[in-house]
Amino acid sequence: KPGANPLEPLTDQEGFEFKAYARSGFLTNGSGNLWHNYAGPYFTPAGSVDGAIGRLGVETNSYVELNFGKKWTFEDGSWARFKVMIADGEDDQNDWTGGSSQINFRQVFTEMGNLKDMPAPLSQATFWAGKRFDRDNFDIHFLDEDVVFLAGTGAGVYDVQMAEGWKSNFSVYSRNFGDTSGYLGFYDPIVTDDFIFTMNNRVGKWQIMLNGLLSPDNNNYANRPWYTPSIVPSEVFGSTQCADSGFLGMLAYHDDSFYGISQGISKTALQFGWGLGAEARLVGADGNLGQNAKTMRFSTFGVTDLAPGWHFSPVLMAQVSQDRYIDGDDYKFVTVNGRVMQDITRSFGMQYEATYQYADIKPMGYTDYGLRTGSPAKGSIGKLTVAPTLYLDQMGIGLLGRPQLRLIGSYVLWNEGLNNFSFSDALGPQYGSYAANGMLSAGTSGWLLGAQMEIWY
Amino acid sequence: KPGANPLEPLTDQEGFEFKAYARSGFLTNGSGNLWHNYAGPYFTPAGSVDGAIGRLGVETNSYVELNFGKKWTFEDGSWARFKVMIADGEDDQNDWTGGSSQINFRQVFTEMGNLKDMPAPLSQATFWAGKRFDRDNFDIHFLDEDVVFLAGTGAGVYDVQMAEGWKSNFSVYSRNFGDTSGYLGFYDPIVTDDFIFTMNNRVGKWQIMLNGLLSPDNNNYANRPWYTPSIVPSEVFGSTQCADSGFLGMLAYHDDSFYGISQGISKTALQFGWGLGAEARLVGADGNLGQNAKTMRFSTFGVTDLAPGWHFSPVLMAQVSQDRYIDGDDYKFVTVNGRVMQDITRSFGMQYEATYQYADIKPMGYTDYGLRTGSPAKGSIGKLTVAPTLYLDQMGIGLLGRPQLRLIGSYVLWNEGLNNFSFSDALGPQYGSYAANGMLSAGTSGWLLGAQMEIWY
Amino acid sequence: KPGANPLEPLTDQEGFEFKAYARSGFLTNGSGNLWHNYAGPYFTPAGSVDGAIGRLGVETNSYVELNFGKKWTFEDGSWARFKVMIADGEDDQNDWTGGSSQINFRQVFTEMGNLKDMPAPLSQATFWAGKRFDRDNFDIHFLDEDVVFLAGTGAGVYDVQMAEGWKSNFSVYSRNFGDTSGYLGFYDPIVTDDFIFTMNNRVGKWQIMLNGLLSPDNNNYANRPWYTPSIVPSEVFGSTQCADSGFLGMLAYHDDSFYGISQGISKTALQFGWGLGAEARLVGADGNLGQNAKTMRFSTFGVTDLAPGWHFSPVLMAQVSQDRYIDGDDYKFVTVNGRVMQDITRSFGMQYEATYQYADIKPMGYTDYGLRTGSPAKGSIGKLTVAPTLYLDQMGIGLLGRPQLRLIGSYVLWNEGLNNFSFSDALGPQYGSYAANGMLSAGTSGWLLGAQMEIWY
Repeated sequence: KPGANPLEPLTDQEGFEFKAYARSGFLTNGSGNLWHNYAGPYFTPAGSVDGAIGRLGVETNSYVELNFGKKWTFEDGSWARFKVMIADGEDDQNDWTGGSSQINFRQVFTEMGNLKDMPAPLSQATFWAGKRFDRDNFDIHFLDEDVVFLAGTGAGVYDVQMAEGWKSNFSVYSRNFGDTSGYLGFYDPIVTDDFIFTMNNRVGKWQIMLNGLLSPDNNNYANRPWYTPSIVPSEVFGSTQCADSGFLGMLAYHDDSFYGISQGISKTALQFGWGLGAEARLVGADGNLGQNAKTMRFSTFGVTDLAPGWHFSPVLMAQVSQDRYIDGDDYKFVTVNGRVMQDITRSFGMQYEATYQYADIKPMGYTDYGLRTGSPAKGSIGKLTVAPTLYLDQMGIGLLGRPQLRLIGSYVLWNEGLNNFSFSDALGPQYGSYAANGMLSAGTSGWLLGAQMEIWY
Repeated sequence: KPGANPLEPLTDQEGFEFKAYARSGFLTNGSGNLWHNYAGPYFTPAGSVDGAIGRLGVETNSYVELNFGKKWTFEDGSWARFKVMIADGEDDQNDWTGGSSQINFRQVFTEMGNLKDMPAPLSQATFWAGKRFDRDNFDIHFLDEDVVFLAGTGAGVYDVQMAEGWKSNFSVYSRNFGDTSGYLGFYDPIVTDDFIFTMNNRVGKWQIMLNGLLSPDNNNYANRPWYTPSIVPSEVFGSTQCADSGFLGMLAYHDDSFYGISQGISKTALQFGWGLGAEARLVGADGNLGQNAKTMRFSTFGVTDLAPGWHFSPVLMAQVSQDRYIDGDDYKFVTVNGRVMQDITRSFGMQYEATYQYADIKPMGYTDYGLRTGSPAKGSIGKLTVAPTLYLDQMGIGLLGRPQLRLIGSYVLWNEGLNNFSFSDALGPQYGSYAANGMLSAGTSGWLLGAQMEIWY
Repeated sequence: KPGANPLEPLTDQEGFEFKAYARSGFLTNGSGNLWHNYAGPYFTPAGSVDGAIGRLGVETNSYVELNFGKKWTFEDGSWARFKVMIADGEDDQNDWTGGSSQINFRQVFTEMGNLKDMPAPLSQATFWAGKRFDRDNFDIHFLDEDVVFLAGTGAGVYDVQMAEGWKSNFSVYSRNFGDTSGYLGFYDPIVTDDFIFTMNNRVGKWQIMLNGLLSPDNNNYANRPWYTPSIVPSEVFGSTQCADSGFLGMLAYHDDSFYGISQGISKTALQFGWGLGAEARLVGADGNLGQNAKTMRFSTFGVTDLAPGWHFSPVLMAQVSQDRYIDGDDYKFVTVNGRVMQDITRSFGMQYEATYQYADIKPMGYTDYGLRTGSPAKGSIGKLTVAPTLYLDQMGIGLLGRPQLRLIGSYVLWNEGLNNFSFSDALGPQYGSYAANGMLSAGTSGWLLGAQMEIWY
């Protein structure tokens, strides 16, 4: 019996879990060079405020998430699980990347469920503590965009039975703004902490998520240039102090059909946040948001079959964010994406993706610590991708079956008005860029050719 | 049969081992901020010389040890094991910590046992080589304090049968003082090496451990400020040259009862070391010890049940260390700790911990390379912690059953005389501290509130 | 059925793979110090152009490769595999090496085979994409030297059936010259990319490998001092611009006997490369090669038994490389190595290794970014090693059976003409060396004593 001898470590080998997500590949922009752009589908100006475009054919890195777990399950249904995630994202194409490796533990947590002797509302609940991605995060795979991504170090309980048909999660997550590694000054790293208090409700297919955010010292942190070794007020004209609190709410509908029209799935979400909650995607992760920041975002996507052997997924995302970093600034974008997959044989198919994004960004001079120009950006960008794809039908055909091995060709076309927004994005001047070979093209269109694998299980 | 074809890698999947230790959680000191203090239970002035206090409710980091192993066992009892440990300690509460990650392989070794054709004294022995924690290290869990922690890269043999009832281990460990990564100057990293020669004997419940230490070039390394890029003699008045040799001995008693009084366990150790052996806990890990350094330490702890559902563990540790870094310096501390756990239901209990430490430290101006003030510290510190705890009775109830999920509340109270010892500990002036938010309180008492998970198996 | 529900991750636990290579140990050069030399068997001047000597008794580091994999196999023979390799090489002997750790993912790829509905030549083929070591790389274990090591991020297909008895692999690998981590200047990292197009043929025991290399922007990168933060032409007199293209060909013979003389194996290879292909071992990994660089290399080794319980492996490698970095430079070396193992008991044997290398190197002032003196080196070096070794006969006796635990003693003797070539190798002046304790001896001979484990499976 595990743990019978309190000083003896458990040796039970059962319950080992090994799961992964990974992608790895390369892209060349036709000038004979690889294309390095860490941002992937976030490479446009709108990407700076979560405006991703379709991901197929614009990803250049090797990104890995290895999940190692151990689960114990007992006869009465009670269980415990330990889980860690080791992750790395690497844009270097070489095999040895010891000098630029970012390997880190993104998750380290333990959870327990079906505990004995619990009061009725908690009898089916799952308790947890540690560092983790919230269990109920969900994303739009085709944009590599989380509708909501809540993560950090905390504790909580899932599936509290509030009433018949109503389950709630309660959690507190702690996070940092700044860098505990002391990079910004060995003696005086700038770290400010924030807390996210979450109540997440499920009633049938409906989800209502309420997040309260608190970072009492964050107003000392406002709009600080990244290279400043001490806490100073912003030198940007008209800037606000950073928010010390905020709220982010979400109403979502998880449909087990394709919008009631056909078989498949669809998910739709409306989010509204202010202050520290005005970052709709990465909850509580942006410490530069102003006191008056407010963001509204609408997202929807679905997956269905158009005909036997023809798979289809449309996506729509639109966001308005105002007074975000500077009073009076304004960030708007809308992204439309569609991916189609055509099965040719039982191991080979063709994927097509078309994406369109319109952005109107008025940053009012905010430079994000020297990474951006502070200039406005306005215009459209479109991308068409063709990807001959190998798969194993037994591991899942279709848009969400993996692994896939792909050849990829993308054509990207955009308005000149999107250039000059950022020093580091793919359309910018690349002056002082830290992303070598990051520019897609000096003009307003470009080709990308390459190959990629993607897997999850 | 494995290895039959010498060029064919072994593919046997059996014998895979996956074991772990992990803790992860957060603490806030009530001012609305998280509390970041890497030192955990070593946050007091005495912590600088291994004086830990009770750990419950003062740990802020996510620390992980993943052990991956492969073991081969054959019909005649002979066996081999390969083991690696991947570990990280991270004070950042965010999920992505690629910039501050410290992930490293703490162990990489192979061991073999019950080898054929061995002479009688070695017929039950285990041989090993590589980087490892010594098999016979043991700790006081409640202080996160090793009684003895011997580790490094070496080779050795366990369980040599010296005589009836007497088994000995022989090993040599190599270690470095300094930093091979060249941080202290790209062109001229300062690395001095030391060797630990160990004979570790078990006779019944008694253990006698003898360590001889040798670091021939270490006297060039003496009391060097951390930022000095070349080897210079100390500029601290009265300083000695660093020791180039030393000895550390331990007499320990491993009792399978609670001091003969009741069921449980208890362990008691007396250690004495001089020169390089004057670091009693981390054998051979402190290269700044002086030639005349001498340390004596007494440790004891036990675990028992006070009554059905009431678990108890007392700890006592006392240490005197003199002429440690500077001739005439003097470091004394005594720590008393008690933890009680009360089972309320089969999945919920209450933990209480009370800890007291008295320290009298006269560093004679020694600043540990600018991390400390060089000023003396004298006084007492106490901590009371309450921790409502969730567990799974099937995985082990009691003080050493894991996993546990805990809410934690600690009240800490101390004499002003402990302030101003260190720039980086929780009671210090935090001037030039590299531990942001590291100060527990500007006064002489403070609250800590948070949550944590802990697991091992 | 895996993937049946497209949004449900696969949970099948079968097919988990855990394989490893690791070595860990220490060496002292008799002056009472450890010997740190990251280069291992590449520590001589010829080591700078792939001239390794015998590895037994000159390796100082802990090097680990952990391979985690997941393989799915279906009834019709089709299969898929996901594989990652986590690796680290660490010269620090301490257990915690968080400050100097180089842990990184050297491989992240997916491959699939026996796919359905493929045309006949591809019906037995294996397709892959991601970051990987090429499947058909092979090495001379006793030198730690790859005959050919092709790796990077790419895509390809193995085992295309070209004709009866003729199989070919086709692949494209992308790599970088320079450092994407921005170490050489945060704002403007210097990264130039290169592509390797490979056709690798097997006809019976014969292998013909053809590699075309392309790095269009590399001529801007020529002979740049490592500390230069922007792209400048070389300041070395007579230097060429770096090559922007190249070719590397190999003809190899894989014998399943010891040169037709006795039982065992043997492998023989002849390589010729020019331009970017003039690095014969690490294909496409050296961006400093000149336009006119040309290299020819001959390698052969075998493994056989001399008598029952006596195992023997001879190695010969010879290389000529001219106009390599500077027009007119000349790098020549020949290495002869022999290892013998004598089984004494079923768990203990003796290993002996003798190695001899002659080098004649005229670098014409090329300093490799300040790491070398630019001076010529000419002379011989010899090494004799004795290694009492423990093993488990059931896991494989002989030169290629592992794990092994070894005590090692080496005596190295060389001509003075090999000194003064490099600031960082074991025979050099160590002025400005970044490898502390890297010098083997101030004279022309030296002892090395230590212990080591080595394992693979």
